[in-house]
Amino acid sequence: MTKLKGNVIVGQSGGPTAVINSSLVGVYKTAKDLGAPKVYGMLNGIRGLLEERYVDLSNHIQSDLDIELLKRTPSSFLGSCRYKLSEPAVGNPEFERIFDILKRLGVEYFFYIGGNDSMDTIKKLSDYGEMMGSSIRFMGVPKTIDNDLDVTDHTPGYGSAAKYIASITKEIIRDGLVYGTESVTIIEIMGRNAGWLAGAASLAEGEDCEGPDLIFLPEVAFDMEHFVEKIKELQKVKKSIVIAISEGIHLADGRYVAELGADLGKADAFGHKTLTGAATYLAREIGKRLDCKSRAIEFSTLQRCASHIVSRVDITEAFQVGGAAVKAAMEGETGQMIILKRVSEDPYICITDTYDVHKIANVEKKVPREWINESGDFVTEEFRHYVRPLIQAELTPIMVDGLPRHLTLRDKAYKRYEEK
Amino acid sequence: MTKLKGNVIVGQSGGPTAVINSSLVGVYKTAKDLGAPKVYGMLNGIRGLLEERYVDLSNHIQSDLDIELLKRTPSSFLGSCRYKLSEPAVGNPEFERIFDILKRLGVEYFFYIGGNDSMDTIKKLSDYGEMMGSSIRFMGVPKTIDNDLDVTDHTPGYGSAAKYIASITKEIIRDGLVYGTESVTIIEIMGRNAGWLAGAASLAEGEDCEGPDLIFLPEVAFDMEHFVEKIKELQKVKKSIVIAISEGIHLADGRYVAELGADLGKADAFGHKTLTGAATYLAREIGKRLDCKSRAIEFSTLQRCASHIVSRVDITEAFQVGGAAVKAAMEGETGQMIILKRVSEDPYICITDTYDVHKIANVEKKVPREWINESGDFVTEEFRHYVRPLIQAELTPIMVDGLPRHLTLRDKAYKRYEEK
Repeated sequence: MTKLKGNVIVGQSGGPTAVINSSLVGVYKTAKDLGAPKVYGMLNGIRGLLEERYVDLSNHIQSDLDIELLKRTPSSFLGSCRYKLSEPAVGNPEFERIFDILKRLGVEYFFYIGGNDSMDTIKKLSDYGEMMGSSIRFMGVPKTIDNDLDVTDHTPGYGSAAKYIASITKEIIRDGLVYGTESVTIIEIMGRNAGWLAGAASLAEGEDCEGPDLIFLPEVAFDMEHFVEKIKELQKVKKSIVIAISEGIHLADGRYVAELGADLGKADAFGHKTLTGAATYLAREIGKRLDCKSRAIEFSTLQRCASHIVSRVDITEAFQVGGAAVKAAMEGETGQMIILKRVSEDPYICITDTYDVHKIANVEKKVPREWINESGDFVTEEFRHYVRPLIQAELTPIMVDGLPRHLTLRDKAYKRYEEK
Repeated sequence: MTKLKGNVIVGQSGGPTAVINSSLVGVYKTAKDLGAPKVYGMLNGIRGLLEERYVDLSNHIQSDLDIELLKRTPSSFLGSCRYKLSEPAVGNPEFERIFDILKRLGVEYFFYIGGNDSMDTIKKLSDYGEMMGSSIRFMGVPKTIDNDLDVTDHTPGYGSAAKYIASITKEIIRDGLVYGTESVTIIEIMGRNAGWLAGAASLAEGEDCEGPDLIFLPEVAFDMEHFVEKIKELQKVKKSIVIAISEGIHLADGRYVAELGADLGKADAFGHKTLTGAATYLAREIGKRLDCKSRAIEFSTLQRCASHIVSRVDITEAFQVGGAAVKAAMEGETGQMIILKRVSEDPYICITDTYDVHKIANVEKKVPREWINESGDFVTEEFRHYVRPLIQAELTPIMVDGLPRHLTLRDKAYKRYEEK
């Protein structure tokens, strides 16, 4: 059997997902199975590596039970970062430092689990490596709840977020019916420029639920008058109205709806603005304009960390892309990201493949316009057909004393604050 | 075997819980087992009954599978209301109307599943019944996520809400650690006057989680300076700080913290103000005063409808109190509420009993001061010892096509809005 010819290092970057640690396990287990002497984990991604903060993962994943726990652990096990590398060039001290550390650790294989911005890191590192004639292979492992990575059929993390969103949307719709009174509920779902997550709320519709009434995605310019008119129409036929919106919906002139009512947050390291408050603003406007009860519910952080309800398909694929990255690197590939290819619709079958990270990094995949209805306020059946396989089946949490158990880094002292 | 001597009617009132339908099943199944010819369900509680809106439950619960689905269905299956009956008196037309409808339906047993306000309804109906020499028995079945009903050890609904709160608090705490950067997260938990729910966030603490850093309950006056100082102290020793607050925390002068920053909602039928925004206000203040990243997360409606993660202990007890109410009514009791009595701590064992609803209605049970630490910013081990048994074990959702399946009233046409 072919074996890995050196040590491995793996990092996690960007916003976490409920299954990002399943990819970490995929890298770790496959690397160990393929004979990696050491598998290091960068703490807080490339930023931590630059500070020489890393662990030997074997000290932290000590048993098969640890592996099962880690798959079910939300938030990046190794910590994350939002760090943009400078441009690679001979003599760039940032790159010299990274390659020096990797050399000292005997690392031949470098894996980075992340989204768009993280693929930019892989691209730059592999470019620099090529420039310097380094033998180290750099592979990207896709993850993001946003599903906005190009080329890949979908990204691990999206299916679980979609399952969570659809599940709680069902619960919220039922809750809204309880008093039989008129109300408008606006749920705000993550998604800055792409509406994949908000669209997933449509899956709530089924034999036991009528689903949300309207869905607004950032792919279509938001029109306040259309919004109000639609609600007025709905109010003629039903009492409890539930509307899903992406946090990033914006007007035709480009202004975010969130900007209309609230202060904007600071931009992050990649220049993305923090958006929040679109639903609150719209709920207030509807309350005023239509003189009815309205409320906003922000799904918030739990969209990316609700490990207590994940998709089995998603968690399995998250593991697979991690493992596939190790295999591909062993076979000599570098500067590639693992992608998922849907080779069959019915039954749903996805396989992994590799794709040049240069063509993926910094490209955002949006919901195709033809998967949104003409009036721009719902997704089509094609959209749902695409998402439905990704939310199938479950991975039961391992419950201890009534709560889901997680795995944590063993050297972290989880001591309570003395004064508490 | 003794049999029920007439028809049964059951209603649900007040805010729903994740297990309120398990109590409905408890009433229904026990009544059928004890020979009830008909079991009616009021639609939207006593308000619907006054409008003669009710169903024959056998038309809607048609199989054992339906029973299992109903146990797992969030939000009140029969709909709910917040309706305050007038004072019972001979000749009061409201009471005459209700008793007239009950007579026509051949109802001898009346069950009302609800909280504090709903017990007021049972009290008044049984008072009027006694006044008029009616044979109808009126029994209260406790439910409320707030756990603020007197006498009973706890209320069905609380355990599942506590389990949900503790589970997602764990996930949010982990999520907050991901970047290794300084941040203050303030989570807002339901609870107007009693801190039972916010206190449950403390259960997040365990071998794999340090738990929230501070918890503020409405039982202790909130002091802004103390709050800021505590956070400053914490920032000296850790980066990601997570604080749980009850929505109803208020200053020593009685003003709600939510009032300080935001507009107050309208009062409901029972005169309770709708509170929201305390966490948003505090996050903003902390951001300003300590110049650090801060955010608010409102746990919102899901606290009462997250059926996808419920406590098995809770769902079982919810069923038991429903069944016990039927048995007690059959044995001639009226004007009583079923209570839970903890007869053993270790192992945890609760039994049911009955208690005069006159002594329960409109009394709010708060967290004892001695279960809150001296500085008023955390709960004691006694509190946690009390709650922990209530969140144990699970009832797995029945998943269909990747989502939890619910039971709905069969005559409700779940048709999609045509224009959508």
